[in-house]
Amino acid sequence: MCARPISIIPVPGMPRVKKGDDLGSLIVGAVAAASITLHDSDVLVITQKVISKAEGRILHLADVTVGRRAAKIAAGLGKDPRVVQVVLAEAKRIVRMGHGVIITETKHGFVCANSGVDQSNVEEGFVTLLPENPDLSARRVRDFIMKKTHKRVAVVITDTFGRPWREGQVDVAIGCCGIKPTRDYEGVVDPYGYTLRVTEPALVDAVAAAAQLAMGKLDMVPVTIVRGLSYEESEEGIRAVLRKRELDLFR
Amino acid sequence: MCARPISIIPVPGMPRVKKGDDLGSLIVGAVAAASITLHDSDVLVITQKVISKAEGRILHLADVTVGRRAAKIAAGLGKDPRVVQVVLAEAKRIVRMGHGVIITETKHGFVCANSGVDQSNVEEGFVTLLPENPDLSARRVRDFIMKKTHKRVAVVITDTFGRPWREGQVDVAIGCCGIKPTRDYEGVVDPYGYTLRVTEPALVDAVAAAAQLAMGKLDMVPVTIVRGLSYEESEEGIRAVLRKRELDLFR
Repeated sequence: MCARPISIIPVPGMPRVKKGDDLGSLIVGAVAAASITLHDSDVLVITQKVISKAEGRILHLADVTVGRRAAKIAAGLGKDPRVVQVVLAEAKRIVRMGHGVIITETKHGFVCANSGVDQSNVEEGFVTLLPENPDLSARRVRDFIMKKTHKRVAVVITDTFGRPWREGQVDVAIGCCGIKPTRDYEGVVDPYGYTLRVTEPALVDAVAAAAQLAMGKLDMVPVTIVRGLSYEESEEGIRAVLRKRELDLFR
Repeated sequence: MCARPISIIPVPGMPRVKKGDDLGSLIVGAVAAASITLHDSDVLVITQKVISKAEGRILHLADVTVGRRAAKIAAGLGKDPRVVQVVLAEAKRIVRMGHGVIITETKHGFVCANSGVDQSNVEEGFVTLLPENPDLSARRVRDFIMKKTHKRVAVVITDTFGRPWREGQVDVAIGCCGIKPTRDYEGVVDPYGYTLRVTEPALVDAVAAAAQLAMGKLDMVPVTIVRGLSYEESEEGIRAVLRKRELDLFR
């Protein structure tokens, strides 16, 4: 890995995305309309929200039947019981609750607030859910873009997660295709002769955070291009950055 | 906050840093030698390692006297007792132990592995400690650079931290000067009319992760410039992203 400049290029002009839209096609259109030419090795970073919308991962809260457990938790936390019901339905287990927050492990294995269920940037009365299989979502967009543009790109899908111990959120990867999620330096010897042991940068998460810098939260810029990054092509997907439960000190 | 392209520019040619070196001067020299011209609003991202070296925050393990508590913990975890002694001396408290790792809360309030004590990229038999006051370290470098170049820059000091739930490390900010550490969207109304509640991007952490993309772990590139970022100037320092203990679900 050689130090080299990186560009983070927001793609303006994406339309509001609705169920059934072909995201790959919308992205290729927006890229062209912005007079951006894709390069080989560009990484397209796409926020979860537009993926979820295109895939119809949206629920109308009026349609949600609240169970007893959700009602009880909602009362304790001061949250909308319908939202809590959806959060529980999307969760494999609850990791922690308190301070008005439910930290869950999702069916995918992500540990995050509210199972990724979100009320922002969606019509009032609706919530978005995380994509069912974000790696597959990434693959679909990547396949389309590669076919249309003949450029060998990678795709990273991101969501905004909070963290323990630190205020503020950073974007992390929840799905990827065409990029190895980590860089492995284990066993590599540093310039002082020390053999690195646990140094494995979470490349896709750093990509997600970098893209966040160029995406205005309110500007409807759900797609960003990270250009100039050196990475290995891989199909292994996001599972590589999810810690196994038995190795985790905080679950 | 408007979507705009961002550049991440590594600064090559930094010499090996030793105790007493004037980092600001070394950086200005390396920037000039690389024919890079600083701009107003550039954010200089500097890894902890060179700050710690310049400030003499290095210990010779041969000089460490191991106490009983450190010896016991080291035996349990299979770690070097001298390193454990230093880790404990740098810690305010232990947050978790297991799987060969000690997660501590440092005197600064960072929760991280081994109190930030590190054996990589330093002469054999030595460890580096985190800077005593990374915000002050950032301020010193910033003041020097602004005086020398007459450019209004910000400085972020980073270290590589692991995370719960996710494999791989991302760089985070441990000190900053001249940049507001978070962007505050609380109460802002999104394009669908929903009032954002807990959306506060941890800007300096996203900057740290972005800079990581352009820094080779083994290339001795400890300084990166993030250019084109829109941020507020602020002196508030890193404390703004450290969650208060009583609000933390994982301490």
